[in-house]
Amino acid sequence: MKPLQQQQCSLCRADSAPVMGAELDGLMGELGDWQLQMQGSVQQLEKLFSFSGYAEAMAFTQRVGELAEAEDHHPAILTEWGKVRVTWWTHTIKGLHINDFICAAKTNQLA
Amino acid sequence: MKPLQQQQCSLCRADSAPVMGAELDGLMGELGDWQLQMQGSVQQLEKLFSFSGYAEAMAFTQRVGELAEAEDHHPAILTEWGKVRVTWWTHTIKGLHINDFICAAKTNQLA
Repeated sequence: MKPLQQQQCSLCRADSAPVMGAELDGLMGELGDWQLQMQGSVQQLEKLFSFSGYAEAMAFTQRVGELAEAEDHHPAILTEWGKVRVTWWTHTIKGLHINDFICAAKTNQLA
Repeated sequence: MKPLQQQQCSLCRADSAPVMGAELDGLMGELGDWQLQMQGSVQQLEKLFSFSGYAEAMAFTQRVGELAEAEDHHPAILTEWGKVRVTWWTHTIKGLHINDFICAAKTNQLA
């Protein structure tokens, strides 16, 4: 299997199974420093990126936005002075798909 | 007094008084459709803007970022597919300054 950051997002259907159990543990280990969190009943991947000012934070937000369009998969991005919080999950399955891990790994490369 | 969107942000000092009472009511009336909210003990101005897709939302985020740099006053911007939530408050006084109302009015003009 290729490293996550070298994979492409695949079509996710409403009946696709969310990532769980040993697969989830393995992917979290590969990602390294992302956090799992629950938003209501929806599991999400989240990471806070720090920057030295606002322009740097906004430039990163823009790059994540370009990644989102390229992968046709769209995160929530909270931009503030010196920090950006990126949250990935898959609306279609109300949880985590392999696509979220691929995009999280690619987000790391943009920071 | 000029309309809010024609004013410029002024220097806010740590001992500047937050906007309250009748002044707050008047400014909220002038803004129209922003919400007051509390984040812990900090009063903030918040509004959700809707768009027809991700690219439109991200372009708006970028414009708000340019406004923030021009005014040297920086909001929190949450960007998702089809929507952007903008939150203004003044860190220095842990509350609302006239600058927040000026920037909220200018944010309306960017949507």
